[in-house]
Amino acid sequence: MAAVQSTTTTAPQRILMGPGPSDVDSRVLAALSAPIVGHLDPYFLGVMDEMQSMLREVFRTKNELTLAVSGTGSAGMETCVVNLIEPGDRMVVGVNGVFGTRMADVAARAGAEVTTIERPFGEVFDADEIAEVVARVKPKVVGLIHAETSTGALQPIEEISRVVHDAGALLLLDTVTSLGGVPVEIDAWNVDAVYSGTQKCLSCPPGLAPVSFSAAALEVMDARKTKVASWYLDMSMVRNYWGGKRAYHHTAPINMNYALHEALRLVLEEGLENRFDRHRQNHLALCAGLEALGIQYAVPADHRLPQLNAVVIPAGVDDAAVRKQLLGEFGIEIGGGLGPMAGKTWRIGLMGAASSNRNVLLLLAALERCLTDQGISITPGAGVAAANGVYGAA
Amino acid sequence: MAAVQSTTTTAPQRILMGPGPSDVDSRVLAALSAPIVGHLDPYFLGVMDEMQSMLREVFRTKNELTLAVSGTGSAGMETCVVNLIEPGDRMVVGVNGVFGTRMADVAARAGAEVTTIERPFGEVFDADEIAEVVARVKPKVVGLIHAETSTGALQPIEEISRVVHDAGALLLLDTVTSLGGVPVEIDAWNVDAVYSGTQKCLSCPPGLAPVSFSAAALEVMDARKTKVASWYLDMSMVRNYWGGKRAYHHTAPINMNYALHEALRLVLEEGLENRFDRHRQNHLALCAGLEALGIQYAVPADHRLPQLNAVVIPAGVDDAAVRKQLLGEFGIEIGGGLGPMAGKTWRIGLMGAASSNRNVLLLLAALERCLTDQGISITPGAGVAAANGVYGAA
Repeated sequence: MAAVQSTTTTAPQRILMGPGPSDVDSRVLAALSAPIVGHLDPYFLGVMDEMQSMLREVFRTKNELTLAVSGTGSAGMETCVVNLIEPGDRMVVGVNGVFGTRMADVAARAGAEVTTIERPFGEVFDADEIAEVVARVKPKVVGLIHAETSTGALQPIEEISRVVHDAGALLLLDTVTSLGGVPVEIDAWNVDAVYSGTQKCLSCPPGLAPVSFSAAALEVMDARKTKVASWYLDMSMVRNYWGGKRAYHHTAPINMNYALHEALRLVLEEGLENRFDRHRQNHLALCAGLEALGIQYAVPADHRLPQLNAVVIPAGVDDAAVRKQLLGEFGIEIGGGLGPMAGKTWRIGLMGAASSNRNVLLLLAALERCLTDQGISITPGAGVAAANGVYGAA
Repeated sequence: MAAVQSTTTTAPQRILMGPGPSDVDSRVLAALSAPIVGHLDPYFLGVMDEMQSMLREVFRTKNELTLAVSGTGSAGMETCVVNLIEPGDRMVVGVNGVFGTRMADVAARAGAEVTTIERPFGEVFDADEIAEVVARVKPKVVGLIHAETSTGALQPIEEISRVVHDAGALLLLDTVTSLGGVPVEIDAWNVDAVYSGTQKCLSCPPGLAPVSFSAAALEVMDARKTKVASWYLDMSMVRNYWGGKRAYHHTAPINMNYALHEALRLVLEEGLENRFDRHRQNHLALCAGLEALGIQYAVPADHRLPQLNAVVIPAGVDDAAVRKQLLGEFGIEIGGGLGPMAGKTWRIGLMGAASSNRNVLLLLAALERCLTDQGISITPGAGVAAANGVYGAA
């Protein structure tokens, strides 16, 4: 066979305003390419310790078992499910988007008797309906999506956590898109198992999945009668590498861990509250700008995710053509709709480093250009003016 | 909680001569920190296409289903096992080291009825004993480790593959440590499922697992009656992202894929045969040097891995002290023994970029220093002289 002639050696400089990955700070990219060391090197063990400590701050938890799984966010989901569930266990999953659907699938593969509770895409669950289902099913675990990346909806957790625990169940929470962008309070909300991803509001490339388990979850895991179905994701072994024994399990993705370490430092240097404020402020500016362009949100205002703006594609506009033009002419990526929302919504991310006033203004300006090309009538500069109005008032 | 004061911001420059990760070329580190793009960006889809093509060359296969799993080598192992095995299927696993033991564990968790065939650590299997066990067990899959990273032994495959297929079974092969260092002939050897890692002889940081499946394996996978236990590793979905449909499954680790893409370009630029020659030559020089220092190999000469030299720690030498001195004074990492070999062997890697004459000479010089400090009597310069003799004769 002839050697492959590779020509694509230079990645283009995108502005990532889709549902993730998001833009990455140059400090994180620099950390990613730092010299590699062994997975038992004293230097790397120090990086791991600091990372666990920073992850606990970001998750707002004191949970001992807090670490980064060596896979992307979906591997984090699978980690939480397969470590808590044994074949025949009952699990309730809230399905109001693609990721709830995914969690139900993962749980069924792990041998759970899955009961789904459903809401139309874009809506969220209330405590009463969760109380009803847990009273009826008596599940071991209830799994919910905090920030549904497919719909842009933010699920309130605090009250639901009470009804879940009152029924004697554990609460498993997906914070892939929420962590670092909106408040995530693992201890205050009494969440038993949580996972996230690196490539959303933490602004690190994809490849790792932060997870954390409560003492109650650990008790359940320690009392398992069967082995965890996945060797790779079995926390009873992985924790001996991240914990005191430093027992080799698998070779950790060294450089990816460097990157997450640096990304977490950036998050904590900014401060979580400042970071949430920034996400909210840019969301409000974008929102005003989009409305001025005649674009409506797909999610009611009271549970919109500031970091993921799901909006309805205006009638008569060619979804793919607009996204292609944004990428081709401006280097801007926004996301299309996922699952039943395909062709109906755009998903505009303002996550982590990508949540900036310059990205908001540029996107509104570029979108005006694309929509005008699509024959939509727009008052010139209306989107940018509305967003600037919000920034000016802040 | 107070912000973490992080002080470890600069990774030390190691020379990685352990069992992996190995040294990484600066071109690969540069690719790792290239600008991130979306996982459906036309640029990234091009990177994926080229990567599949290069992986096929390196595996020496025409297998359509050839891609990089979003996890480390052990995730590759789990991917191959869980996609081929359904609960109740019989699987034979050859156990002559830690990774055979691991494969048997992974298979049992997937619901396989596992039969292990065992050899002492450091030995390899012959075709007759495999023929006997497959005739008796009639397994669906036979799993073997091509290059046992825990023992340094190279398992011949060609004849065994014939007896496995004569018995109607599929052959699953671990090439984590072999790929890119010694010949791996997936099509010529008729291997049905193979996985590897990036951090050994491909000299890329850990984080991805190249895999490939034969047409016969695909038939078995397509005929499954049950879902794959792992959602994350389910090839029936992952292949729709790497293949023509480009259906979103999980967010690929973008920058890690850049890195593997560049690492594969380096492998093919050098040429596989040249690369194997280089690994062999440096192994022979190291071997001569170690013997001059009075250090014996743990594996008979006829099935030693050139890229992973497992040697017996001389009597009276403090294992941990020597490895600590090598790391602390010279920045050189070598590996300790794994499993039952702990404290008995060192594992000296000459993998990928780390397989160089300068690393061989430096290690021999540094080892002379450490062993002398341990009270071992060595003719000054004997190791270096013996290695240089091999290089001079080449």
